[in-house]
This record gives sequence, structure tokens and C-alpha cells, in this order.
Amino acid sequence: SSPLPPPPTSSPLPEKLRSRQFWRAVLAEVLGTLVLVSTMLGASVPGPGEAPGGPLYPALAIAAVITSLGHCFGEISGAQVNPSVTLSFLAAKKIDLVRALVYVAAQCLGAFLASGALYLALPHKSTAEVFVNRLGPDVNAAQAVGVEVLCTFSMVFAIFSVEEQRRRESTEPSHLGIGLAHTAAVFIGARFSGAGMNPARALGPALITGYWENHWVYWIGPVTGGVLAGVSHEFFFAHSASRLKLVA
Amino acid sequence: SSPLPPPPTSSPLPEKLRSRQFWRAVLAEVLGTLVLVSTMLGASVPGPGEAPGGPLYPALAIAAVITSLGHCFGEISGAQVNPSVTLSFLAAKKIDLVRALVYVAAQCLGAFLASGALYLALPHKSTAEVFVNRLGPDVNAAQAVGVEVLCTFSMVFAIFSVEEQRRRESTEPSHLGIGLAHTAAVFIGARFSGAGMNPARALGPALITGYWENHWVYWIGPVTGGVLAGVSHEFFFAHSASRLKLVA
Amino acid sequence: SSPLPPPPTSSPLPEKLRSRQFWRAVLAEVLGTLVLVSTMLGASVPGPGEAPGGPLYPALAIAAVITSLGHCFGEISGAQVNPSVTLSFLAAKKIDLVRALVYVAAQCLGAFLASGALYLALPHKSTAEVFVNRLGPDVNAAQAVGVEVLCTFSMVFAIFSVEEQRRRESTEPSHLGIGLAHTAAVFIGARFSGAGMNPARALGPALITGYWENHWVYWIGPVTGGVLAGVSHEFFFAHSASRLKLVA
Amino acid sequence: SSPLPPPPTSSPLPEKLRSRQFWRAVLAEVLGTLVLVSTMLGASVPGPGEAPGGPLYPALAIAAVITSLGHCFGEISGAQVNPSVTLSFLAAKKIDLVRALVYVAAQCLGAFLASGALYLALPHKSTAEVFVNRLGPDVNAAQAVGVEVLCTFSMVFAIFSVEEQRRRESTEPSHLGIGLAHTAAVFIGARFSGAGMNPARALGPALITGYWENHWVYWIGPVTGGVLAGVSHEFFFAHSASRLKLVA
Repeated sequence: SSPLPPPPTSSPLPEKLRSRQFWRAVLAEVLGTLVLVSTMLGASVPGPGEAPGGPLYPALAIAAVITSLGHCFGEISGAQVNPSVTLSFLAAKKIDLVRALVYVAAQCLGAFLASGALYLALPHKSTAEVFVNRLGPDVNAAQAVGVEVLCTFSMVFAIFSVEEQRRRESTEPSHLGIGLAHTAAVFIGARFSGAGMNPARALGPALITGYWENHWVYWIGPVTGGVLAGVSHEFFFAHSASRLKLVA
Repeated sequence: SSPLPPPPTSSPLPEKLRSRQFWRAVLAEVLGTLVLVSTMLGASVPGPGEAPGGPLYPALAIAAVITSLGHCFGEISGAQVNPSVTLSFLAAKKIDLVRALVYVAAQCLGAFLASGALYLALPHKSTAEVFVNRLGPDVNAAQAVGVEVLCTFSMVFAIFSVEEQRRRESTEPSHLGIGLAHTAAVFIGARFSGAGMNPARALGPALITGYWENHWVYWIGPVTGGVLAGVSHEFFFAHSASRLKLVA
Repeated sequence: SSPLPPPPTSSPLPEKLRSRQFWRAVLAEVLGTLVLVSTMLGASVPGPGEAPGGPLYPALAIAAVITSLGHCFGEISGAQVNPSVTLSFLAAKKIDLVRALVYVAAQCLGAFLASGALYLALPHKSTAEVFVNRLGPDVNAAQAVGVEVLCTFSMVFAIFSVEEQRRRESTEPSHLGIGLAHTAAVFIGARFSGAGMNPARALGPALITGYWENHWVYWIGPVTGGVLAGVSHEFFFAHSASRLKLVA
Repeated sequence: SSPLPPPPTSSPLPEKLRSRQFWRAVLAEVLGTLVLVSTMLGASVPGPGEAPGGPLYPALAIAAVITSLGHCFGEISGAQVNPSVTLSFLAAKKIDLVRALVYVAAQCLGAFLASGALYLALPHKSTAEVFVNRLGPDVNAAQAVGVEVLCTFSMVFAIFSVEEQRRRESTEPSHLGIGLAHTAAVFIGARFSGAGMNPARALGPALITGYWENHWVYWIGPVTGGVLAGVSHEFFFAHSASRLKLVA
């Protein structure tokens, strides 16, 4: 007697795209990446007459903001706020393709909004070049890619490890663990490649300033490192790791 | 046979104002803001012959003091120690108007006492201008308001998120999470608006030094950002969020 | 048939002084203060040709070492490692007089050993003056006492709060909370009085270098601040606070 | 009907060496030490035209990376990543000789790989000398050994304490506690001996740069300090400590 629900195939969109929860997660990724990129750009602005600094400010800022975003959005979207993290979850078959692509777009949008907002507040627009991810002096692109792979590997491996512990109800502070993994990774690579580790964070300022030199380094390196970390954790180090998974 | 309690309406004051617990909470806000503002002002005093520094000292100091105050007063008054936090709780209908107004007054008193105490200990009173929240060089008031909105939004949103997790008995360290959200927000705004985020912290030194230029920025920006964060968290992101709440 | 234990009054020493557990706790205070003071002195040595720095190194070092010592000795002696903490526990009737006095002696011994060890390793003995707690430039002794009272009050109040939460099995990280309370207190007072907060840490280097100017400041200030914090927490802010306790 | 497994004694190798779990742990030590040493070397590279810095970067970097590695490999290999830690576990009879020797070899391999990788990315190979552990100016080898003993003692003692608390299901964050113990130890010794505390971290850059002056200091000091800490914790301070253990 009760009417049948409309057949799912009658909708041109997958069901997910019509759910309130999904779009709340997408908005969380936009907002989260906006806050992340604002923090990293704000931390990179030198004082008047100062030279741009070393890894100290980014290293502290990223631990603080990643921990905070874990509290804000961890249960809503996973607080991934980074395409290399999202794509490593995709590679490890933890999220599906539609979600991954929409998240990456949301992250790029958030990074663009943050870069624009901080650009608007910047008194001397010519100094906006400090926002851009760029190679250290005399470092070549191949070296930078290698360092980005190493940084992002260590950071994404930690995320997968913490996520696994969370499922087993560890009482270790997981958001802080992930935040400090970012800090360590910043120290590895800051002097070589700037330790970008996040293509969205690289894209936002590039769009605003029009500075695209070696931009590809900050996509290839982090995504490669992240995917390597996700796959090697899932198929070798995880409690449930098994070679069967690789061929499944 | 036991005498009836006096009818509540016979008192000119609401019952709350006669409770020991309420005034203990108010004293906690005075003491807490006193310690907060002492820490932030102490961290801003440069060494002899040094120029005032970048965001490093405030960023570290605020994480430490907010975490510590959470332990001291979190269960007594909520350790709000910030009018923009208190007013965002009011906007989200988490505390009532009387409590909010008394808290804000207590916070301003604590900030005034701290500013006075550190002013008394300062060898060269002329250097007290480092205590004051002021715009970065060449930043205009509109830009500063925008940055204060962004900083305070990110910080208050984290407070609401952590409070919600606390109700669900998360084992993440909540005081530290809130402390690090402050650190991240300091990195966002320090070079632009000084990342005040706290009208009481702005008011105390202004009263002591008589420096009031752009003082309104440090009320409008933080209160707007905080209220936006509280309302958007409560009515959109919280587990129990519902559009019905907005019209209730 | 089993022999009676010797009557306690037959011993010239209180029973405590003959227990293995008590002396383990005393050794923990010696070792703990040795490590604390080594860390603080090591953090105060400037690089070759550098001027002694601001509060940054002490502020970070104290959070790290206090957290670590909490893990090492918290369950053995309470990891008090500071006469002003021990005397505030005595004032709040949490430990007895014999234990308090032996702990303070142990702390002073540990601080002396640490100061001697680092003095031996110092290439230019003349630079050992950086080890000594001293007033900031142009700060007078009364101002310094006031600042030490404020710093130590805020720090010891946090210790009492954390201890109370521990008894109620909070999952907040208690050692880190106490460590960060020290950091905040260092930021309050570093530029004025050096934020000593610990008479043993002041005594060790004074014995080694023979520098005693204003040494009394670093006993009167911290002990006053600590005792005020302990008493006000215990008799006003604690869950079990009651005015009856004051006259008990 | 099912074939019997081959008798264990028919194999020339102990059973452990044929287990998948053991080699996973060994790989964890390789990877963990690789990430640790990359982080410490990356943090030691000065900016262009800058002098090598003080203990700030190493002190922050080591807390971050040790905490992160605890999450990554703590449950797989113990995340020891340091021969002086492994040998102190051996001295306290917590692991057996075969495991200890294979772990030390794995740690040295990881450190060598990290040093090589960062050397490849370094634009001016002549600056690789910043990677090497060396004595502070005018510090002699005996002083450096003494300081390394003190640093490593304090750090390994904390590890043993945290491990004991973990067995009793404390909710304190154990990885962070160990990370901060490293930070405190860096502050103790950075200006004297460089606070190496880790023979593998010393060996990797020495192999790459061919700089061997006083290299023995960074084996003798840390191993002595670590073994002293492990033995004194286990036989005097641990809950289950007993003099009988020493002769067992």
C-alpha cells in the first residue's frame, strides 16, 4: 500500500551526490583547506624588511593547523585538506573515485579562496611571491621531486598508521600525531623543495600570482609519495595486510 | 514542619547571582584572563635593543596558556577568557545573556589587571606600546577586520568542535586542541592585524597606555568571526544540526 | 607463634625514613631535578659569539623536560622537582613536613649536581654566568618578586588543577598540561625576572659560580606564589573546597 | 594424511629469521631510521648565507619525528630507530641478542640511505659537513662523552618509564612523551656535544662525508648512557624492580 521509492536509476546523479552528508563533507574540505592554506601563507609572510625565513614558522604552523582541523572536520570529511592524501586513500581503495575527485576540487577551491583573501590583505602585493611553493636556491627539479616524494611518503604513512590505530580505539592523540608528522616532513624538505606536500596549497597562490615555474613538481612529487605510502602501508604494514589484497 | 524556602520572586536578583558556583566561575574568568593577558604581554616584550618580533612568541605562548587555562578553569567556567568566545556561545544559545555579560565584564577586568601589573614591572614605561594590538605596517582597518574575522572564525569553530567531541567522550586532548587552534589563527593574522582575536586582550593595554587607534577593529572583527563560527557550527556542522534550530 | 614486629617507637627514626619506597622517591627527586636543571642550563648556553637569547629556548625546554619527568617520576615521587611546588603541597596539607623537607634537600642536591656537571663541560668557564637566575636589565628586586609570584602562582595553580583531574580519571594528558603551564609562566616573566619559579634551579648555579646577587628573590617570589596558588585552589576552587577546611 | 611441517631443527636459521613478522619489524627499523635521520639532517641545513643554527630546529624536529614514528612503527618494531635504545633493551633483557643485532644493522642501513638521499639533494656538497655530529667549539672528547651519557640517560630512562606505563594502560600520550624526552635531551647537550644520542644517526653522515673525527664519542657516550638508564630503571625504579633480577 505504501508507494515505492522512485527507482534510483531514474536520477541522473549517483545517490551520494544528492545526500546532505556528502555535501557537508565537501564543504568541510573547502573550509578546511581554506584555513590550512591561510595559516601556511600567513606564516610565510616576513616582517617588514625581513628576509623570508627558514622552516620554523611553517613547521610550527602546520602542526597547529592540522591538529585543529582534525578536531573541526575529522569526523565530517576526514579533514584530508590535501589532494595527495585524498588520492592515496583512493589508491588504497578507502574512498571511491567520485568522492576523491569532488574532494580534490573542493580542496583546490579552498586553497584558491585562501590565497585570494590573504592577497587582498597584503599591503605590498609584490611580496606575494613568498606565498608560492618554489625550489630552494640551486636545487633542481629532479632533486625537488625526490624530496617531495620522501616528505609526503613519511607524512601519509603516518596518517594511514594513525587511522588504523583509531579504528582499534587507541588513546594516543591522533590529530596531534598527524600534525607532528607534517612538522617532521617540513623539516626534511623545507630547505630543498619547500616541503609543499600539498598540490592544492601550491595551486592557490600560483593562480593568484601567475607564478607557475616548476609547478608540476608540487603535483608529481606529493601524489607519488602519498600513493606509495598508502599502498605500502595497506598491503605490507597494516595489521590486516596481505598480498592477496594487491591482486584483489 | 520545615519552614518553606523564601519564594524566589522575593529577591531583586536572579537566583544565579546569589549562587556560590556562579561567582566562582566569574572569578575563574577574571583570573584566567589575567593569566592569559599576562602571558601574551610578557611574550611581546622584546629584549633590550631588540625590535618587536614576529608571530613566534605569541603563537607558542597562546597554545601553552590556553591549554593550561583549560586545565585550571575548564570545568569551572569553561575557561572562555575571551569576549568573542563568550558572545559566540551566547549567539549559539549555549549560555544566557546574564552570564555572558558578567563573563565579558570579568574578562575585561582580568585583562586590565594583567596590563596594569605588567606595566608596573616594565622598566621603560615608554616601551609599553608593544602591549597594544595594532595594525601591521600599511595594513588598513578594513583589511584588518577581514583578517580578524578569518582568524577568530577558525579558532572559535575549533572550540565548538572540541566541545561537541567532549560531550561524546572523545579521548583526544581537548585543551591542547583548542590551544593549537589559537596558534594556527595567530599564524594566519599576525603579520596583518596582529591576530588579536580577543577584545579583552585589546582593551586592557589600551586602558593602561591610552592608545586607542583602530581599537574598534579588535572588537568588531573578533566578535563577528566568533559569532559566525558559533552559528555556522551549531546550525550546519554539528551532529545535531538542523535547519529547524535556526528558527526556534 | 609468629614474632611480633618491633614496636615502631623503638626506632629513633619515623617509620617512613626506613622505607625503601620513601628513599626511591627521594632519589627520584634528586635525579629529576638533575635532569630539569641540566636541561634549563643547557638551553641557556648561547652559541659562540651569540648573545644570551630571549625566552624561546627556556620556554620550549621546560615544557619538554617537565612532561618527560612526569612520565619518569610522576608515580614515584610526584616529579615535583621544585621546592616551591613541594612547599605548596605542604601548605595545602597534601604532604607532611618530613617528606617536604627531605624533598627540598634532594631537589637542591640534584640542582647542585647538574650545575656542577654542566660547569665541567663548559669550555669557557667565564660564561657560566648565563646559568644564573638574574633580574632583567633595569628591573628592580620588588618588581622581580612580584613577577615571580605571578608566574609561579599560575604554574602551581595548574599543577593543583591537573592533580585534581587525575584523581577523577580525566583522559587529558596531565604531564603535558603541567609542562605547558610552565611554558606559559616562562613567557610571563622571562623578560622581567627570568621566570625562575624554582629555588633549587636558582641555588645550584649560585653555589657553583658564587653569584648571589638578588638570590633571595628566587626563593621569596616562587614560594609565595606557589603557596598562594595551592591554598587558593584547595580552599576555594577545588571540587571539594570548603571554608571549613581553612580552620580545620 | 597432511604432510608434516619440516622439523624446525632441520633449518640452519633460527625460527625467528624465517618469520614474516620479524622481517616486517626489521624493515620498519630501516624505514623509521631513514625518516628520523632525514628529518634531523634536513633540519640542520642552514639557509643560504646563514650560519648553522642552535638547538632550536633539532629540538623541535626530533619531538615531531619521534612522535610520528611511534604512531607508524611502535606496534611493529617498537620504533626504536636508535642503537643505543636497542642495546639498552638488550641490557635490560627485554629483547634477545639476535633481534638486537639485526635491528642495529637495520638502523645503520636506514641512516646511511637517508644521508645518501639528502646528500644527493644538496646543491653545494661541500656544506654536507653540517650533517655530521661533532663536538662544540673548544669542547674536548671526554666532556662530550660525559654530556652524551647524561643526554641519552635521561632520554632512555623516559622510554623505559613510558613503556612501563603503556603496559598498565595509562591514557597519557606515550609517543609524545618519548618525543619530548628527546627534545629535553637535545637542549641538555646541543651546545656541548651536539646531543647525538644515536650512533646510527652519527654513522650515516660519517660514511657519506668521510668525516670520522671523534666518531667514537657518538657510540661510547650514547650506548653507555642508554644501558645505564635501562639497567637502573629496570632494577631499581620499575614497579617490578627487585635486586634479585640483577643476579638472575
